[in-house]
Amino acid sequence: MTTLERACAYLREGDDFLILTHTSPDGDTLGSASALCRALRAMGKRANIACSDPIPQKYSFLVEPDLPEPFAYRRIVSVDVADVQLLGDALAGYGDRIELCIDHHPSNCIRADIRLLDTAAAAAAEVVYELIRALGVTPDRQMAIQIYTGISTDSGCFRFSNTTSRTHRIAAELFELGIDHTEIDRRMFETQSRGYVALEQQVLASIEYHFDGLCALVAVTREMLEQSGVSDSELDGIAQLPRQIEGVEVGATLKQKQDGEFRVSLRTNRWLNASEICERLGGGGHVRAAGCRIHGDLAGAKRQLLEAIGAELAKRERPAV
Amino acid sequence: MTTLERACAYLREGDDFLILTHTSPDGDTLGSASALCRALRAMGKRANIACSDPIPQKYSFLVEPDLPEPFAYRRIVSVDVADVQLLGDALAGYGDRIELCIDHHPSNCIRADIRLLDTAAAAAAEVVYELIRALGVTPDRQMAIQIYTGISTDSGCFRFSNTTSRTHRIAAELFELGIDHTEIDRRMFETQSRGYVALEQQVLASIEYHFDGLCALVAVTREMLEQSGVSDSELDGIAQLPRQIEGVEVGATLKQKQDGEFRVSLRTNRWLNASEICERLGGGGHVRAAGCRIHGDLAGAKRQLLEAIGAELAKRERPAV
Repeated sequence: MTTLERACAYLREGDDFLILTHTSPDGDTLGSASALCRALRAMGKRANIACSDPIPQKYSFLVEPDLPEPFAYRRIVSVDVADVQLLGDALAGYGDRIELCIDHHPSNCIRADIRLLDTAAAAAAEVVYELIRALGVTPDRQMAIQIYTGISTDSGCFRFSNTTSRTHRIAAELFELGIDHTEIDRRMFETQSRGYVALEQQVLASIEYHFDGLCALVAVTREMLEQSGVSDSELDGIAQLPRQIEGVEVGATLKQKQDGEFRVSLRTNRWLNASEICERLGGGGHVRAAGCRIHGDLAGAKRQLLEAIGAELAKRERPAV
Repeated sequence: MTTLERACAYLREGDDFLILTHTSPDGDTLGSASALCRALRAMGKRANIACSDPIPQKYSFLVEPDLPEPFAYRRIVSVDVADVQLLGDALAGYGDRIELCIDHHPSNCIRADIRLLDTAAAAAAEVVYELIRALGVTPDRQMAIQIYTGISTDSGCFRFSNTTSRTHRIAAELFELGIDHTEIDRRMFETQSRGYVALEQQVLASIEYHFDGLCALVAVTREMLEQSGVSDSELDGIAQLPRQIEGVEVGATLKQKQDGEFRVSLRTNRWLNASEICERLGGGGHVRAAGCRIHGDLAGAKRQLLEAIGAELAKRERPAV
């Protein structure tokens, strides 16, 4: 029996499900968990989803509300949760009770009877979609919206390198279920708060170019965050800005944390190794995206970072375009 | 015989093709024409593509160079050209010689023996892909790159409302041909010039909110363009900025032209009619995207525009969210 078949049998035979999502919930964990919850209810079962953190307004349209009558949870499923630490305080008690773990993170370390882990999937929503199909449930429009949101948010709307042929094939099937993808994409990707726009303006004004334009560097200080009212969690997009500039190979973003320390996000485009640069400063990560922390004031943090970048640049020849 | 079958017969029976693209060439006209050119050559035929304008550096990787030996063109095909006016000066002489016209624009008014026009296609590249398949040619990796670039640029990387189930299905097949979609998407969507980044910063600094935040307005003056060295043709993205801000229903961009006149780009999100606002000022367009021209200085142009927006706002009740 394949893992997919075992997962189907587990869901078909059981009842009274609780589906766990991760803290700082995103479109994939909420969309995937909600679609599975809806599919189980369509099979005549009782199911709820749960999250330790409040649901951001942006994602509220995804979430299946609890069933009106409370019931005791007998089957525990996690979706898009790579580690029990990511369940958060409110759900920590379920950490050793997960029976079915559905995920796509290579780093997944959750112990569960059934681990439906597909690291080639761009989103947990891809795995859940195939599970729903395997269960014999025909997805309704709301499930299609939930799955599409999970896929589009985790794949950067089909731009990230995790996007595969299967990702597009599932999107094609979801379109046939009648979703309004433009409205979802607008909510997920296009809408920015006024504070964020003001912050982006300040960040762009702070941009510096180094090493003949090979490096672009921006900084987000506590003062900028406080003036704009933008929270740390909204800053994900900022780290992409500097590397998108023509001629730039390495884009660096320094974000000042509440304790004054700077958190560095480094992105490279083609030939520099972001991880090796960050390792010089006690950090690490992937070849194209890495990070580290630097103590001190902004000028000192920039100097340390530029020294590390300069050292890696000196090690290798710049390739022909 | 269907139009597709007639187009196949025409291409199979003929030889010595010239494939015409439109002026201000984009990813779709160049990608589609080049893929078709490559497919015809794979069938053992002679074919070249042509454009009245120089090929922007950004798109140079798409273009099939002319065959080394010149030859007299006997069959004329147009791709993604809606009107003979769009052939430009250098190709105007071919305007009444087009035998096969391949396009997806509803406004297409080209006279040709065979009009392979599919207005449901997100890109001409979708039509060309199906044509290549119907010809029995298996697309190679370069053709897949050309078709994918046409589709992704014309569909806003699968975000625009023209994206359909078929768009995703074709993308899935192209992925299976081994393309590096992340490199294409990076070149097409992510790379911005330093001048553009500086201009964007100035534009964001100029943002004004009106009507309780329902309207966001930005201006691009000649001075800003000259300082940043950005050309008018790079400004397409700017018009999207104001409407992407939370709570904004109508986003307005005023661009000063060389004669001092302001060109207004208006975008609405859900319930205001952009075209009706612009019609008040002698312009027009679509429900969600429209434009007009206003003479006078910046302050006067803003005042006229805000009056027109205010008048339309007064006509209708703001819907519940």
